[in-house]
Amino acid sequence: MSSTKGLIDPKKLTDFSARALQKVGVPEEHAKITAGLLVKTDLMGIDSHGVAHLANFYVAWIKAGAIKVNPDMKLASKAPTTGILDADEGLGFVAGYKAMNEAMDRAEKYGSGFISVVNSTHFGAASVYSTMALERDMIGISMTQGGKGIIAPGGKGEGIGLNVLSWAIPTKNEAPFILDMCTGVVAGGKIEIAARTGQPLPEGWALKADGTPATAPDEVAGILPLGGTPVLGAYKGFGLTVLVDILCSTLSGGLTVPEITEPKDGDSNHFFGAIKIDGFMSADTFKEKMDAMAKAYHNLPKASGVEKITLPGEIEKQKTQERSKGLSLHPQVVESLVNLAKELGIEYDL
Amino acid sequence: MSSTKGLIDPKKLTDFSARALQKVGVPEEHAKITAGLLVKTDLMGIDSHGVAHLANFYVAWIKAGAIKVNPDMKLASKAPTTGILDADEGLGFVAGYKAMNEAMDRAEKYGSGFISVVNSTHFGAASVYSTMALERDMIGISMTQGGKGIIAPGGKGEGIGLNVLSWAIPTKNEAPFILDMCTGVVAGGKIEIAARTGQPLPEGWALKADGTPATAPDEVAGILPLGGTPVLGAYKGFGLTVLVDILCSTLSGGLTVPEITEPKDGDSNHFFGAIKIDGFMSADTFKEKMDAMAKAYHNLPKASGVEKITLPGEIEKQKTQERSKGLSLHPQVVESLVNLAKELGIEYDL
Repeated sequence: MSSTKGLIDPKKLTDFSARALQKVGVPEEHAKITAGLLVKTDLMGIDSHGVAHLANFYVAWIKAGAIKVNPDMKLASKAPTTGILDADEGLGFVAGYKAMNEAMDRAEKYGSGFISVVNSTHFGAASVYSTMALERDMIGISMTQGGKGIIAPGGKGEGIGLNVLSWAIPTKNEAPFILDMCTGVVAGGKIEIAARTGQPLPEGWALKADGTPATAPDEVAGILPLGGTPVLGAYKGFGLTVLVDILCSTLSGGLTVPEITEPKDGDSNHFFGAIKIDGFMSADTFKEKMDAMAKAYHNLPKASGVEKITLPGEIEKQKTQERSKGLSLHPQVVESLVNLAKELGIEYDL
Repeated sequence: MSSTKGLIDPKKLTDFSARALQKVGVPEEHAKITAGLLVKTDLMGIDSHGVAHLANFYVAWIKAGAIKVNPDMKLASKAPTTGILDADEGLGFVAGYKAMNEAMDRAEKYGSGFISVVNSTHFGAASVYSTMALERDMIGISMTQGGKGIIAPGGKGEGIGLNVLSWAIPTKNEAPFILDMCTGVVAGGKIEIAARTGQPLPEGWALKADGTPATAPDEVAGILPLGGTPVLGAYKGFGLTVLVDILCSTLSGGLTVPEITEPKDGDSNHFFGAIKIDGFMSADTFKEKMDAMAKAYHNLPKASGVEKITLPGEIEKQKTQERSKGLSLHPQVVESLVNLAKELGIEYDL
């Protein structure tokens, strides 16, 4: 397929990514989990968090010793539906996959389940975990602590975390509801894209060190919390940032972003949850009601020139359908994979 | 106390409110629950949602038959930690109090618990329920569907709900974390206050019917979702709005805001949750860690002229401490209570 259309087969990309990870010492099972989630990310259209990071984040961090390839992950559970997973500085993807499955297993039995994860590393895109709940007819929740990047209202510089929260809720025929949001006005990746393309920043995204609006990417001292200014709701974005930090970090026994004095590449804590639909009503009835909900939102009166009101998850569904036939990676990403293959001495067959 | 300082004793205000509700047929237990939560709201500093609404919302709606004073509330539970409460058009305060307690009882036993509530009515301020979890060393969650008031991105007019979400998390000595936010840029009450005081609206709060910014309260066709415009994150505020609508309405068997074709005064659905800290780690250890978290946020570098970085919940704690000595109600609110006493033939003794 890739030869005729210039598209990359997702299956081959997964195999390649798993081989690369195994080559730097990741056990086969963990390499397959991580590779699967990375390619799922690209399939969902989240280009910033998929295989684009394979070489410069995960392989690089493993080689630098910042991620352990043979972690001793331990789950401590003090109630039937809750517990803490200590990820022992292993791959965040493996920790996330295991913790999300654990939360779902608890939810299967009791109706709900929550696992907070400490001593983990960068887990990629939050919605690859929350959406694991969809096929089990559950509501999925995933959150992660991000690096320093947001300015607290009244603060100066990037003191608080670019934290992320995601909720996924199943439907019958409509696109599943998938919310995946950084608690800042924009994710850090948007600033990086502006830097790469030489675009100015829209006012309201970020501030300079002196507290005035940053208009160029290299002036950014910190991103504003969702809402932007206090009069436009910055305390809400700030509150969500702190909430995610507490659930991921304080509740897991870790440190919140402002408590971290020596940040290490990729270090992170997470929070996962699952709520079983059948504990409220039959999942089939619920999913039909979700379709009716989506239709009602679609049928809202539209502003002139607007064709459709798009619910969170609809773009992800469309991208996944399109891309399952083959992925078109950015030339820089392809180059990073070609170089990675050379560096590790594995075959580049994409 | 009230005679010497012009302040109203919270206990007397609670008794008065309960007597007023009993006078229109609310059973004693339900009247006491409702009155207690209304005054708790005023103590927390949420003036817009407390006894200010006693006469024109709850008593008026009861007299109009929109709220049943003797509802047949039924809980249906299909898993150990989850269930649906059908509130039978009773007082939202009673439904909320019962559902939150039910969620906490499940969490006590299993670690977490969630109750979705259908056929309910206006429950006041969300954080009076989430904060019920604090004294039981739990994380409390409460959400409610609001009236039509927010514009979807790409939409026209107030098609979606002024929905609200609240999380409360206990601390040791610092103020508990209390997030209580409408998913719009501002709550509807802020527009009402601007109307009352004749102030113009800040740009970015609301739009006119033609989609241009509303600068006067009487021009408002709808409030913008948190984020405001798509480039500043409106899809995040929109996503949160839909999320709350699904958890409150679809999951309880009710209708989401866009599905409601004939809105009735005060009709609402809610969602409550509780997560027990002891299911992760000792609550005492956690609360000490919460204090350390708060201190780290307080110690962040501050913008010039800023004395303190304020966490969600700190204003509520301060107000509750100040006001427990006596409440100073707005003259219009006092007048509404005096008139209510006359109307119902009960003694005004505040």
